[in-house]
Amino acid sequence: MHRAVYEGERRLSVIDVPDSPPGPGQVQVDVAYTGICGTDLHILHGVMDRRVGVPAVIGHEMSGTVARLGDGVDGWHPGDPVTVLPVLPCGACRTCAAGHGNVCPQLTFIGIDSAGSMQQRWNVPASALVRLPGTLDLAHGALAEPTAVAVHDVRRSGLAAGEHAVVVGGGPVGLLIAVVARRIGAHVLVLEPSPQRRAVADQLGFTAADPATADTNALVGDWTGGEGAAVSFEVSGAAAGVATGVRALAPRGRLVMVAIHAAPREVDLHRFFWRELTMLGARLYSRHDMATAVELVAAGHIPAAELITQVEPLNRVGEAFAALESGTGVMKVLLDCAAAR
Amino acid sequence: MHRAVYEGERRLSVIDVPDSPPGPGQVQVDVAYTGICGTDLHILHGVMDRRVGVPAVIGHEMSGTVARLGDGVDGWHPGDPVTVLPVLPCGACRTCAAGHGNVCPQLTFIGIDSAGSMQQRWNVPASALVRLPGTLDLAHGALAEPTAVAVHDVRRSGLAAGEHAVVVGGGPVGLLIAVVARRIGAHVLVLEPSPQRRAVADQLGFTAADPATADTNALVGDWTGGEGAAVSFEVSGAAAGVATGVRALAPRGRLVMVAIHAAPREVDLHRFFWRELTMLGARLYSRHDMATAVELVAAGHIPAAELITQVEPLNRVGEAFAALESGTGVMKVLLDCAAAR
Repeated sequence: MHRAVYEGERRLSVIDVPDSPPGPGQVQVDVAYTGICGTDLHILHGVMDRRVGVPAVIGHEMSGTVARLGDGVDGWHPGDPVTVLPVLPCGACRTCAAGHGNVCPQLTFIGIDSAGSMQQRWNVPASALVRLPGTLDLAHGALAEPTAVAVHDVRRSGLAAGEHAVVVGGGPVGLLIAVVARRIGAHVLVLEPSPQRRAVADQLGFTAADPATADTNALVGDWTGGEGAAVSFEVSGAAAGVATGVRALAPRGRLVMVAIHAAPREVDLHRFFWRELTMLGARLYSRHDMATAVELVAAGHIPAAELITQVEPLNRVGEAFAALESGTGVMKVLLDCAAAR
Repeated sequence: MHRAVYEGERRLSVIDVPDSPPGPGQVQVDVAYTGICGTDLHILHGVMDRRVGVPAVIGHEMSGTVARLGDGVDGWHPGDPVTVLPVLPCGACRTCAAGHGNVCPQLTFIGIDSAGSMQQRWNVPASALVRLPGTLDLAHGALAEPTAVAVHDVRRSGLAAGEHAVVVGGGPVGLLIAVVARRIGAHVLVLEPSPQRRAVADQLGFTAADPATADTNALVGDWTGGEGAAVSFEVSGAAAGVATGVRALAPRGRLVMVAIHAAPREVDLHRFFWRELTMLGARLYSRHDMATAVELVAAGHIPAAELITQVEPLNRVGEAFAALESGTGVMKVLLDCAAAR
């Protein structure tokens, strides 16, 4: 079977290896599709070499079908369509006990801390499997994981129907947040500098503006009758995105910090004091978020056709990463892992 | 009657003026004590000249007794002991409707936007009066307002019994927060560079450490069994205080932003993401917070003797401000406004 391997120093190769049987408690999955995530790109750039170890098999946004069961596994049958919940909390610490396993200090993540889904057959703990409806297009199923991120981010914000939400950054996660926020009845504005990404937002029926040229303060003011937004989502990762997100908020507004800011950022703490703003870090998702995500994808509420802009066979993994790196018009790139099986 | 007047450029004078009768809906209060707040010091430094207007009568941490009633006022009698809720929200906007009048964009504040209590007789809206118990020492009653700040800050944090809270900054507000947090059953650690202020914290039974010399990460780690604190209160106003407050927190920890940071501060947003931290701005208080504060002061739970380090007659207002400015050993300085009546 074929497997994509990250070899360090921006190198990816595809090798042919014999598949190994699932261990006790494991299930072997025939991987159908694996999406490439921003984190995968970070790994390719060498930023996480120490954590992933090199060489490494990465990938965690996936769909597939059950192939074989390891010893002691029941409740699954060959052919069952599945995705994987790659978050493995310790289950024993105070954070886990409080129900926040997604930020467990001992958490490991399948596809980063252990082998991921950029391969044709993948052995995972049976407990990590999440059932997909049989009717679901498996390419769409690969969007369940990024949708779970969006579901978690929106849940963390406490966004309610009728509230105004600004999404700063209109990439795949930003647009998924916009879609989930709209589903619950919020008004959504997307701020995104790339014209191609704004065009996708537009196609999905969102008002999208360019924060580089628009006066976002005036824009948000007009849009909210001078009040400011109830929620903003910082999904850009840029210093300016943080400032925009803070500035957009009404008194008691909530800023959800979705993007990864490797460097500390200047924050207008006076505004936090003056308006009693709240900043909420948001990371990963719970099993409950994933279940909601699967429901949304299965019901057709996630615009898969607009978000999946490219599908490449696993053997072209290098080209797939390159497409994601190069093009602002690119949204979600999937690897078709079945193509070469 | 005597009145202290801020004349701009760090000048305070005391003048003798005839008192004016209370207008319709107003009550004239014989002011007993007025505490000097950090905001009053800011005003003296000229930072808020445009907002207060010059000359100005300032002061809002007070106690007194009802002297006379204006037309249309009932429910009050001469001699009734009172303090004043100086927060005047518009009552009509969406923020007020949501119950957050303390951050109403049209809010005015008695003692900043209108005349304050650094005078012997003071006319205030009857609706702003808050009854004090007849048995209460009025010097202690002047602590109700800063105690309301602390009550609000602790309420905003969601702090629960058994949780660990770090208070960064051991001035009057910091120690009041520490006292209120301990009352609800939390474990409290105070970080404060001034040895005199640490000594007061110590006297009040708190563990206090010097953040300039202690390894606060190790300290908080040891103290919380390696978990980190559930809550930290940033009351120092220093850039380093923000960093310490963030660093102290366990996953899902809450940082309450109490201090005023005039300049933007660098914040470790990656930590917010990674641990799903929450930052909560906290400003002023509600009538409910003030009622709780009066109860705490009346029940003797607020250590007035340790916190009130100096009482000066109104005529020595300049010296009182100078004492607060100069001395790290100084906690709360009160003006005795009855002394020269």
